[in-house]
Amino acid sequence: MTPEEFRAAGHQLIDWISDYRSSLDQMPVRAQIEPGDIRKSLPPTPPDQPIEFEDMLNQLEQRVLPGVTQVQHPMHFGWFPSNASLASVLGDIASSGLGTLGISWESCPALTEVEQVVCDWMRQLTGLSEQWEGTIHDTASTACLTALLIAREKASNFAQNRGGLQAEPKAYRVYATREAHSSITKSALLAGFGMDNLQFVDVDPVNQSMSLAALASCIRQDLTEGHIPTAIIASVGSTGVTAFDPLGPITELARQHGIWVHVDAAMAGSAMLLPECRSLWDGVEDADSISWNPHKWMGTILDCSLFYVKDPDLLIQVMSTNPSYLRSSVDSEVTQYRDWGIPLGRRFRALKLWFHLSLDGPEAIRMRLRRDIGNAQWFAAEVENTRDWKVLTPVNLQTVCIRHEPVGMDADALDQHTLNWVDAINQSGLAFMSPSQLNGRWMVRVSIGVESTTREHVKALWTMIKEQVALSLQE
Amino acid sequence: MTPEEFRAAGHQLIDWISDYRSSLDQMPVRAQIEPGDIRKSLPPTPPDQPIEFEDMLNQLEQRVLPGVTQVQHPMHFGWFPSNASLASVLGDIASSGLGTLGISWESCPALTEVEQVVCDWMRQLTGLSEQWEGTIHDTASTACLTALLIAREKASNFAQNRGGLQAEPKAYRVYATREAHSSITKSALLAGFGMDNLQFVDVDPVNQSMSLAALASCIRQDLTEGHIPTAIIASVGSTGVTAFDPLGPITELARQHGIWVHVDAAMAGSAMLLPECRSLWDGVEDADSISWNPHKWMGTILDCSLFYVKDPDLLIQVMSTNPSYLRSSVDSEVTQYRDWGIPLGRRFRALKLWFHLSLDGPEAIRMRLRRDIGNAQWFAAEVENTRDWKVLTPVNLQTVCIRHEPVGMDADALDQHTLNWVDAINQSGLAFMSPSQLNGRWMVRVSIGVESTTREHVKALWTMIKEQVALSLQE
Repeated sequence: MTPEEFRAAGHQLIDWISDYRSSLDQMPVRAQIEPGDIRKSLPPTPPDQPIEFEDMLNQLEQRVLPGVTQVQHPMHFGWFPSNASLASVLGDIASSGLGTLGISWESCPALTEVEQVVCDWMRQLTGLSEQWEGTIHDTASTACLTALLIAREKASNFAQNRGGLQAEPKAYRVYATREAHSSITKSALLAGFGMDNLQFVDVDPVNQSMSLAALASCIRQDLTEGHIPTAIIASVGSTGVTAFDPLGPITELARQHGIWVHVDAAMAGSAMLLPECRSLWDGVEDADSISWNPHKWMGTILDCSLFYVKDPDLLIQVMSTNPSYLRSSVDSEVTQYRDWGIPLGRRFRALKLWFHLSLDGPEAIRMRLRRDIGNAQWFAAEVENTRDWKVLTPVNLQTVCIRHEPVGMDADALDQHTLNWVDAINQSGLAFMSPSQLNGRWMVRVSIGVESTTREHVKALWTMIKEQVALSLQE
Repeated sequence: MTPEEFRAAGHQLIDWISDYRSSLDQMPVRAQIEPGDIRKSLPPTPPDQPIEFEDMLNQLEQRVLPGVTQVQHPMHFGWFPSNASLASVLGDIASSGLGTLGISWESCPALTEVEQVVCDWMRQLTGLSEQWEGTIHDTASTACLTALLIAREKASNFAQNRGGLQAEPKAYRVYATREAHSSITKSALLAGFGMDNLQFVDVDPVNQSMSLAALASCIRQDLTEGHIPTAIIASVGSTGVTAFDPLGPITELARQHGIWVHVDAAMAGSAMLLPECRSLWDGVEDADSISWNPHKWMGTILDCSLFYVKDPDLLIQVMSTNPSYLRSSVDSEVTQYRDWGIPLGRRFRALKLWFHLSLDGPEAIRMRLRRDIGNAQWFAAEVENTRDWKVLTPVNLQTVCIRHEPVGMDADALDQHTLNWVDAINQSGLAFMSPSQLNGRWMVRVSIGVESTTREHVKALWTMIKEQVALSLQE
C-alpha cells in the first residue's frame, strides 16, 4: 500500500472511528453473540486476492463490531474502567504511523527519551518523590512478574547466574492476600516460587485489607522454619473490592527483614493524581517497586502500565542482555529499556501518554476522576438507604460492591438471586456489571468510571437494577 | 476530547503520517542526535494547560522525528527488517479506535475469535499442519519465555503447584547454541533454570548451526550426571548470521528423551510463506512450540509475534488463572487467550494481521520476499567477486554477513578497520548496517528486506561501501 492509498483509506477509517465513538451508546454493552459466531463469519482460509478498503471497513462494521463488548459505553460498569481517551488514541495512531523499532536507544532515541520524560511527568502528577524511575510495560501482570523476578534474584544473591532456583536449598516465600489480583499467583508460579511458597495472608474482615498481625506472624513462622521471606505484594485498590493494604506498616515490617515490597496499584494509581486520595497509599515511598495502569481509570488506551523502581541497577542486573549486534558507542550514556522488562522489541507507547496529558491536560483528567468518585458516593448512599440492599465493603474509590438481600433468603438462594438479576441486566445489553465473589458468596461490583458515564447514567443504572430485582423476585 | 474533535485531529494526523511516509527516504537513516537531546527538548514538568492539536503535531515533527532511526527507510539494512506495512498500520489504527479490552472472551469476543482465525490463516500460509494452534504475543522474547515455562513445568511434573523449582533436587537443563538470540539466555535465567544449566551446544563452523553430535554428547553427559534434559531452543534463522539449526535430527533426538523443542523462527518464519524455503525448517512438525514475528520481514507492524503449540491444554495448565470476576457461563466453550501468555489485558492485535493479509494479499507479500532474496543473492555475488571482500556465512535468506579483509592486516587491525568503515556510513545517515561479531571478530550484517528497498538501493549501498572502505584506508 502506498502512502497515498493509505491517506485515502486513513481518512475513511478516521471517519468510521469518529462515527463509531459518537454512536456506541446506542449499541448493546455486552456483545450479543454466541461463542463461535465471529469465527464462523470469517473465511476458514486466508484471502487469495487483496480486497478493497471499503470492503475491509464493511467487514469491520458487520463482522467485528457485533463481537465487541463496548467498554467505552457509558452504561459499562464491569471489571474496571478501561478508558481509551481519544487524545491517547491519537498518540497510539502516531505510534503506529511512525512504525518505529524499540530494541535499543539507537534504534529509536525518541522512543526511549519521551518514555523517560512522560514516566517522570506521571511520577510528579502522582506525588512520588524523585527517587523513583519508571518505564512502561504492557500490563500490571508483566510488571508484577518483573518485580518478583527482581526480588527472587536479590534474595538469592543472583542464583540465576549460578544453578538457578533449583539449586537453592531454602524456600523463598512470597506474601499476598487472597484479594490480590489473579496475576500475583500467576507471577509467583511462573517465577518458580511454587504454590507452597505463596503465603496468603489473612485480611481484615471489614476492609479486606492485609492484616499486619497476620503478616508478621507468617514472616515469624517462616523465619523459624528456615525459609527466606522474599517479597510482599501489597494491593493498592484490590480488584474485587478496591481494598487498600496498609503500606506504611507493611513497608516498615519488610525493611526489618529485607523483604521486597511491590505495590500493585493497577487500578488505584489513577486516584493518586488527586492529592486528597494519596493518604490511601501512605508508605509507598518505602516500597521497592510500584505498578499502575493509566490504561484503566485514567484513560490512556491499553496497553500502558507504569512500572517504577528505586534501584534501576538491580532491575537491569536481573533483566539485562547485551549481544554484539545491539551494542553501540553510546551504551554507557543511555537507558536501554529492553533491560527494564521482558520483551526486546518495544512499541512507542510513550506517545499515547504524551498526547493524552498534552491534549486533555491533567486538570480535566482530575475533574473526571473526582466526578466518578462523587457518583460512586451518591450511588452507595442510594443503595444503603434502600430496604434489603447492602453496600458490602467500604467505597474507597469508584467501585461499589452491592447485594440485594431479601429477608429470609438462605445463602445459596441468595447467590442464585444475585446471579439472576445481574445476568438478566448483562444479557439485555442495556448495562453491564461484574458479578464477583466475596468470602465465597456472589455479589455485584458496580465499577463507575467510564469517560462518558455521567450522574444520569448512574441514576439510570440504579433504576434498572431495582426494576430487575423486582422482576426477578416475581418469576 | 469529543469524537468530532478527534475527527478533525485524526484527519490532520493521517495527512501527517502519509506525508511522513512519502518523504522519509529524504531523512537520515540513523537519528542524528546525541543522548539526552530529545529529553532536554521536552519540559521537565507535566503540562499545566491542554495544548492545541496543531501544537502537538508540531512537537511530533520537531522534537520526536529527529530522534527516530528510520527503520522504514529503503537504505536501512540494520538488525532485521521491521516493516510496518501501511495496510497493517490501518489495522493497528482500527484497534486503537475500537478501544477494546481483551481480558476474557466475554470482554471482546471478536478480539479472541479474529485472533483464532488469522493465526490459523498464518498456519496455512506457512505450510504447518492442523495440529498447531496459535496466538499472538508481543515479541518472540515473551514467546520463548513462555515455551521454557511450559517445558519446565512438564519436566518437573508441575513443580509450580508444589514447592516450585527451588524444591527440585535435580538440575533441569536447557540447550541452545551461542548463535541463539539474546532472549534465549534471558528467558532461561528468568525462568529460573540458572546459567549453569543453560548448555551452549557447539556449532558447525561453516553454517553456525547446531552440531547434532555436540547436542547428543551434551544430553548423554547430563543424563549420566543425573540431570534432566528439559528443553532445546532451535534457532531457525539466527540473529547473527541467519543460521538454521537442523530441526529434523534435533526433534528426533529430543523425542527419544522427552525433551521440549521450541523453534525460534522469529526472523525466518516470514520465509515460510514461500514453499521453496520450507525445507529450511524440515522437521518443524515434530517440535513442540514455534514462535515467529510477522512484525519483522513480513511487515505486520510491531508488536506481532505468533506463538504456536501442539498441546494448548498443557500451555493453559501452566498459565491459567480463573478468578471469580472473570468467570462467565460460556467459559467451557471458548478460548481464553489470557491463559496462553503472561499478560491478562490484551490489545486487539489480530486486526493488523487481518488488515495486512486482506488489503495487501499474500501473493504481493510473497513477491516482495522473493525480491529481497534475489537482492541478497545479487549482493553476495558482487561481494564475493570483489578482491579482498568476503561473504562469511551462507546466505540462507536475505542477510549477508560481509568483511573487507585487506591482505596483511592482523585480526585486531581488521576489527578496527571494519568498525571504522561501517561507523562512518552509519554516522553519515545515508545508510545503516549492524556491525556484529562472528567467532569473536567484528563483521557487518547487511540485512536486506525493508519494504521500499529495491535493487537500486542495494546497488547504491554496495557503491557506498566500496567508496567508504577506500576512504578509510587512505586515512
